[in-house]
Amino acid sequence: MKAAAVKAEGSVREKLAIVTEDKRVIDMTTAARQSGSDYHVPETMIQAAAEGEVFWEEAEKLTKWVLANNREDCIQTFDDVTLSAPIPAPLKNIMCAGKNYRDHALEMGSEADVPEDPIIFTKAPTTVIGPGEEIHSHPGITEEVDYEGEIAVIIGKEGSGISAEQADDHIFGYTLVNDVTARDLQKRHKQFFLGKSLDTFCPMGPYIVRPEEIKGKDITLETYVNGERRQQAAVSQMIFSVSSLIEIISRAITLQPGDVIATGTPAGVGKGFNPPRLLHPGDEVVVTAEGLGRLTNRVQ
Amino acid sequence: MKAAAVKAEGSVREKLAIVTEDKRVIDMTTAARQSGSDYHVPETMIQAAAEGEVFWEEAEKLTKWVLANNREDCIQTFDDVTLSAPIPAPLKNIMCAGKNYRDHALEMGSEADVPEDPIIFTKAPTTVIGPGEEIHSHPGITEEVDYEGEIAVIIGKEGSGISAEQADDHIFGYTLVNDVTARDLQKRHKQFFLGKSLDTFCPMGPYIVRPEEIKGKDITLETYVNGERRQQAAVSQMIFSVSSLIEIISRAITLQPGDVIATGTPAGVGKGFNPPRLLHPGDEVVVTAEGLGRLTNRVQ
Repeated sequence: MKAAAVKAEGSVREKLAIVTEDKRVIDMTTAARQSGSDYHVPETMIQAAAEGEVFWEEAEKLTKWVLANNREDCIQTFDDVTLSAPIPAPLKNIMCAGKNYRDHALEMGSEADVPEDPIIFTKAPTTVIGPGEEIHSHPGITEEVDYEGEIAVIIGKEGSGISAEQADDHIFGYTLVNDVTARDLQKRHKQFFLGKSLDTFCPMGPYIVRPEEIKGKDITLETYVNGERRQQAAVSQMIFSVSSLIEIISRAITLQPGDVIATGTPAGVGKGFNPPRLLHPGDEVVVTAEGLGRLTNRVQ
Repeated sequence: MKAAAVKAEGSVREKLAIVTEDKRVIDMTTAARQSGSDYHVPETMIQAAAEGEVFWEEAEKLTKWVLANNREDCIQTFDDVTLSAPIPAPLKNIMCAGKNYRDHALEMGSEADVPEDPIIFTKAPTTVIGPGEEIHSHPGITEEVDYEGEIAVIIGKEGSGISAEQADDHIFGYTLVNDVTARDLQKRHKQFFLGKSLDTFCPMGPYIVRPEEIKGKDITLETYVNGERRQQAAVSQMIFSVSSLIEIISRAITLQPGDVIATGTPAGVGKGFNPPRLLHPGDEVVVTAEGLGRLTNRVQ
């Protein structure tokens, strides 16, 4: 089960939809109305995240009804809709794990850069863009725009002091992000926030995947630039697992519905090459992982 | 002119109020209704920030009307109300300038720690508490809770690419924050976010002061622990001025109404002493600056 935020013409607010296995898009609000369901479809994905499993179960019911009754009035094709980021306006900064794949820590420095404790920094909510939207290159402000394909976890149920064993109860789903980074600013300003937070520097999507779809699978994350594979790693190579990140972050920080935690990027970022292979206007970046779809964005 | 967020009994939402020079508190909604004003008082300080000067002008009109007519039905005393943080639920992380006073950079390290470019990190919105609320000591999670008294600027008009000369047009007002820090976590996790973001680690208030009240004044910022002065500095000692911080942050990051930028702390934090003088349960911390009031919080 996959939930997407669809841009609705003439509305500032996105509409929630389900993306089926064969890439059809079901408008949840229409399906709920037409099927006579008394489920009140959330207006935003953050509200859906707060509902957690209730949302996924209702989404499943609506999908079954639409498909069983072949209700074309509730269905569009994936290519006919414009998706926004699943969480287009997060209520706090996106939290990101730095150097969470050993090979990436090594390509950015040396053995000393492999973290013994998670390195967490943030990206401003104003960085978020949806699938297909353009990454600004910010000429004159940065000369070193780089990509970082990552898997992101979306928090459902609020909590703090969450143990790794309980973490699954607080996960609403998974999506992809591109943690676009201005390497020069990241270095110059020491703390990562500024170099990570330029407008448009967090492509997110294409949709949120229900946890059970990828649970227990060692999925592979890949990043392509202009069709060439630059990053590839199994999520089992993360130094700190998703459960571990949730445990450590939530020790004294309350995690809330719709919070986004980007879990780190594997080796193969542009800055890791010698000479560096950074992004330039016109470049197309695709982040993809089994079951999580493809997130495609071009540099303006 | 000072605007405060007053906790209203039986409501989850704060009410906006004006604090007068003689510390009386004017309920803006009541004053607007009683005076027959057609001004729609904002429901939150973030909405007020978006209105900017319009809000301050309307607040001034209402205050004049209440005082001229001696309308006791619109007035409470400062001690009779409970203030929340002026921005109790920021829509993104609080941005903070690290080591923005030379003497503080030196007490935390050496000449090499004095920044040539601003160091910007963030605190989660869940850190915010109001005047008089308790700072949690988070035993078992941190052993090194420290204070950092700071002046914070609240953004009004949205913008990016704001020059230092234009910065005043984007400032809604000023308040005080205590950038409470878990020194052990700050060091262990390298990037500052985790050590800065424990729940309750951002006391804010007591109110927001209109820029013209402190404009051009070299005000002094002080922090007291249990009545003993630990920090004292003139804001002119900042390495990067408020205008400069706004220019540099906004180069490629859109600043939005209600954004909070904490401008850094002077020398005299607990960790700067030898041996360190950190916070312990029961300690009372007061952050104060001329014209900005007193922000008092006790450690739980």
